[in-house]
Amino acid sequence: MMRIALFGAGRIGEVHARNIAANLRCRLAFVVDPDADAAARLADRYGGRPVAADTAMAAGQADAFIVASSTNTHAALLNALAPLGKPILCEKPVSLDFAEAEACAQRLDAADARCMMGFHRRYDPGFAEVRRRVQSGEAGRIFQLCIASRSWAPPPPDYIRQSGGLFRDQTIHDFDVARFLLGEPIASVYAVGGCMIDERIGALGDIDSAMVTLTAASGALVCICNGRFAAFGYDQRVEVFGTKATYLVGNVSADTVACGTADGWLSARPKATFAERYREAYERELDRFVDFAEGDEADIATHHDGLAAQALAEAALNSLQTRTPVEVFARAG
Amino acid sequence: MMRIALFGAGRIGEVHARNIAANLRCRLAFVVDPDADAAARLADRYGGRPVAADTAMAAGQADAFIVASSTNTHAALLNALAPLGKPILCEKPVSLDFAEAEACAQRLDAADARCMMGFHRRYDPGFAEVRRRVQSGEAGRIFQLCIASRSWAPPPPDYIRQSGGLFRDQTIHDFDVARFLLGEPIASVYAVGGCMIDERIGALGDIDSAMVTLTAASGALVCICNGRFAAFGYDQRVEVFGTKATYLVGNVSADTVACGTADGWLSARPKATFAERYREAYERELDRFVDFAEGDEADIATHHDGLAAQALAEAALNSLQTRTPVEVFARAG
Amino acid sequence: MMRIALFGAGRIGEVHARNIAANLRCRLAFVVDPDADAAARLADRYGGRPVAADTAMAAGQADAFIVASSTNTHAALLNALAPLGKPILCEKPVSLDFAEAEACAQRLDAADARCMMGFHRRYDPGFAEVRRRVQSGEAGRIFQLCIASRSWAPPPPDYIRQSGGLFRDQTIHDFDVARFLLGEPIASVYAVGGCMIDERIGALGDIDSAMVTLTAASGALVCICNGRFAAFGYDQRVEVFGTKATYLVGNVSADTVACGTADGWLSARPKATFAERYREAYERELDRFVDFAEGDEADIATHHDGLAAQALAEAALNSLQTRTPVEVFARAG
Amino acid sequence: MMRIALFGAGRIGEVHARNIAANLRCRLAFVVDPDADAAARLADRYGGRPVAADTAMAAGQADAFIVASSTNTHAALLNALAPLGKPILCEKPVSLDFAEAEACAQRLDAADARCMMGFHRRYDPGFAEVRRRVQSGEAGRIFQLCIASRSWAPPPPDYIRQSGGLFRDQTIHDFDVARFLLGEPIASVYAVGGCMIDERIGALGDIDSAMVTLTAASGALVCICNGRFAAFGYDQRVEVFGTKATYLVGNVSADTVACGTADGWLSARPKATFAERYREAYERELDRFVDFAEGDEADIATHHDGLAAQALAEAALNSLQTRTPVEVFARAG
Repeated sequence: MMRIALFGAGRIGEVHARNIAANLRCRLAFVVDPDADAAARLADRYGGRPVAADTAMAAGQADAFIVASSTNTHAALLNALAPLGKPILCEKPVSLDFAEAEACAQRLDAADARCMMGFHRRYDPGFAEVRRRVQSGEAGRIFQLCIASRSWAPPPPDYIRQSGGLFRDQTIHDFDVARFLLGEPIASVYAVGGCMIDERIGALGDIDSAMVTLTAASGALVCICNGRFAAFGYDQRVEVFGTKATYLVGNVSADTVACGTADGWLSARPKATFAERYREAYERELDRFVDFAEGDEADIATHHDGLAAQALAEAALNSLQTRTPVEVFARAG
Repeated sequence: MMRIALFGAGRIGEVHARNIAANLRCRLAFVVDPDADAAARLADRYGGRPVAADTAMAAGQADAFIVASSTNTHAALLNALAPLGKPILCEKPVSLDFAEAEACAQRLDAADARCMMGFHRRYDPGFAEVRRRVQSGEAGRIFQLCIASRSWAPPPPDYIRQSGGLFRDQTIHDFDVARFLLGEPIASVYAVGGCMIDERIGALGDIDSAMVTLTAASGALVCICNGRFAAFGYDQRVEVFGTKATYLVGNVSADTVACGTADGWLSARPKATFAERYREAYERELDRFVDFAEGDEADIATHHDGLAAQALAEAALNSLQTRTPVEVFARAG
Repeated sequence: MMRIALFGAGRIGEVHARNIAANLRCRLAFVVDPDADAAARLADRYGGRPVAADTAMAAGQADAFIVASSTNTHAALLNALAPLGKPILCEKPVSLDFAEAEACAQRLDAADARCMMGFHRRYDPGFAEVRRRVQSGEAGRIFQLCIASRSWAPPPPDYIRQSGGLFRDQTIHDFDVARFLLGEPIASVYAVGGCMIDERIGALGDIDSAMVTLTAASGALVCICNGRFAAFGYDQRVEVFGTKATYLVGNVSADTVACGTADGWLSARPKATFAERYREAYERELDRFVDFAEGDEADIATHHDGLAAQALAEAALNSLQTRTPVEVFARAG
Repeated sequence: MMRIALFGAGRIGEVHARNIAANLRCRLAFVVDPDADAAARLADRYGGRPVAADTAMAAGQADAFIVASSTNTHAALLNALAPLGKPILCEKPVSLDFAEAEACAQRLDAADARCMMGFHRRYDPGFAEVRRRVQSGEAGRIFQLCIASRSWAPPPPDYIRQSGGLFRDQTIHDFDVARFLLGEPIASVYAVGGCMIDERIGALGDIDSAMVTLTAASGALVCICNGRFAAFGYDQRVEVFGTKATYLVGNVSADTVACGTADGWLSARPKATFAERYREAYERELDRFVDFAEGDEADIATHHDGLAAQALAEAALNSLQTRTPVEVFARAG
């Protein structure tokens, strides 16, 4: 049974802790967080001990690490974990600073470290099923991909301020989904956007509505529609158009009740939060992390994929600012 | 081009008149109605001449007849038309009096008359497609059939008063659909019902809510759920359960717009009236009547089918009154 | 944190064990099963100790009991647990023998025992939401209720043999759902059925296809459509028709992927097993059991409700055999 | 009853002829086509006389004109019809040559001619309903609009050759829909595209897959996804995102049958051809043309709207060729 050390006892840390407790292949050994109370609370609920970082990293203790602490600590943690020779699951991004992320990736490579990035959507039953079927060839040649990705409500200004902006914070997941579903490098990026929904976001120099067009190496076209809000709730859909089949992945409704009156049929909103919407995705992500620890890397996002998605976010920001399409370097994939 | 004489210039008469005008294989030759203005109006709009009944029935005039006049005139008209040797399309029922309907059917048979009953649902694209697939065997053995059939609003007392009651007026269509989809005779009928929706209906001795259970000769079970009202509108659905496939025929929405807000997703009610809901069914019914006139009788409801459906309505009424299941005579199919 | 003793380490026992482990308000203290290995395996995975029954029932040990052992042990266990003064969650039914179930209920009452029956569908998000809205009055007067309840595949003969037959094994859940959603007693029952799907079931004297019509005290009509099979999978739907609103609770799809080709749109089957379909229902059932232990009984199924549902199953069997509707005694609710 | 002269007896001409025959407010007076047989056939079926153009244009004859002849005749016909003072319904585009279309529009204006362009999607029940609701303000501020518009199969090379290319032939409808739903001018256009589906289209110098991003004056973003093919059929959807409501207009299914098997649920493709899909839109378009003739211009596309949509097509072509976004002149709206 794989012993996991968890860095970070916040919201996403708790998601991992709960899943570790429910997964029969691993258990929560350590929780590390500067907030000792938070660490103790998680350890008490889901097993494991609240410890200092060096205890968790000591030889012969943890078999694997999950980095779910605040973003500004990821790079330093990865640098420290890289030489330990244990598998790592790291929440995205490695760093909001692209150069730092790049340097960190190089250190991971130099240490032959094995690092999986927490792009949970890859493990969503719907997205994973479409990936499988596209890879099987049953869809024929893919010519278009449409990704809808909208929050249910704008996050508060404090979140926006440290988020790195829409492209680095939200669209980065869509960039990874695009790369995952197409299975090929992106050649160019064009982005438009603005502040149309919540003026506090504009006041912070960020945008809350964007459309990003990608052109893949094969000529396949990708459209990503982003927003910090949708009137009906959390919008997470994908459409893949191939010469033999089209796939739609729809939203996941909160329930299956429909109410019919003279006004028509009223059915439920999508599941409201990322934790509910992606509940199964996070459960499977953990399971895939155990697989990854055991050597199976199929469809896993590594730190190379993380860097590629970040490069697309940087290109989108560049495009938005220059109002021109931006060619992407080959490495960015 | 088949010349049609239409008896009846009321609501259903106009549906036929409009479809005749739009169908390239036939034309409206005569309109007969005791209300001369109504006949003239229809003739003016859709072609043809308003005439007296004997003119329409004169030798060498009409090639086919459609009986869409008030129910209490059907039997006499069929008796008069039977010897003419021309194809007839008659709205259901032949008569609210079962003995009279039976006698009329015998006269039609004696005269070798060819009579198609206006069970329009047989020609609905959805119901017809399910019939085709059940007949093909792809569904395996059918073990259950569920028919939902509810009006969007209770009809006025004047309509109820002359309707013959729920089973003879509304359920009769469902009895025909059951026989059509199963393709086998019904062995027994059990009905429950009451006045739950509109007390004016109860005051007239009729019911506005009913459930009828049929057992077919093979053992297949049928559930018919009827009402004079559904809160969301006109409810016309069918579910067929076979050992290899299940078929659902859903309602036809008024439009495909969905509106998403914090309350959820609001989508359109079904098409509101029988004329809108069954627009294509009536168009195809007319087309099938031209086929029938030319000798093709596949899937056509004849006056024998009309009588069989009526026998089931009588059995349901009997069951409701005696509170016991009623065995159905073989002839009733 | 409520300490739970679990009787039964089989399939449904494991469902409860897993949910206890994930629920922060309780923990698994003891697992009791004649199969010592099974008990040990569950205790190892989800916490707690494998013990003999008397240890689990010893004073000062468990705070609550879950009876998830084989049906033929329920009555004896309840008799033993009744005097202990602790809340009990018992899987249905108390006994396949109605007289024994009745006697057991009397003993529970005599001991003032508090017993919740495991009718998990009451805690399904969809069914519970409809109950809430019907109770609120927003649906107006309920005149019809349609319950579809079909297994995805016939169970093996060994299961059928000890099941008590379709009505006592499967329909009993639908009887409870009908009582739960209508909130009023049932007055009469009429059942038809036969063996149409799997002849091995007929060879055992059981049926695999049934339709049951209930008439409630208010005149509301209920149609329950049952089968040991549906071609598309596990079918669990409800439709409630009120004078102000209609509610539909649909199946829960395995995923939200739709694949479009020249054949049309292919979308996923429902979740395949009761454990997947009712995952949230079982989680919430446990949570409601903790509430129940703390005194909140709203919408809880007690052993009285269990007996009422069983009485309806007996009446259905009686109706099937006598081919007549059966009046239900007042007590049966 | 408005007497209509119809120019063009081809496929779209027949759609109009049939609708004129079925509409009680107008009738088909003349059919003009260089192919005398085609004109005679239409006149025979739907009423009216096959005549030469000058007869149809003679004083005191037709009350209104419909131009549904081949595209290269539109401008000359409009020039001839402009001085007659009668309302005109002209299929898009006025001319594939933008300068000629512009000159023609100036002549129409100089003659005070009243010309409605055949952008039938404006009259589709779904699109029209969304327009109505957006205009009412209930959606709040519109920040995004997504238009999916894909043919069910690539047209033959002969059609492609004279089509003017994807943007002028297909996307032009989407440009009009964008202007119609947003109700404001477009500021910039960015287009990507290529030949991914049918190499014969590429061989003719055209593209068969494109994504066009529009930025409206308000900052609202529009994404148009185009293709000459979709695996499941004719794809015509719209999504409008406002700060108070989201609207989705879905495809119109060929029927409402769903077939459930072990593979899942198979439901029908969309209606296959533009004539079926937009049957009601064309019926309403004609009805609106009669309204237009009587002075009601609400939501009507005039030749100015036609020119604006064409300007966006020219800008998209320019963007595709230069690989940069193109600012649109104010007039283009």
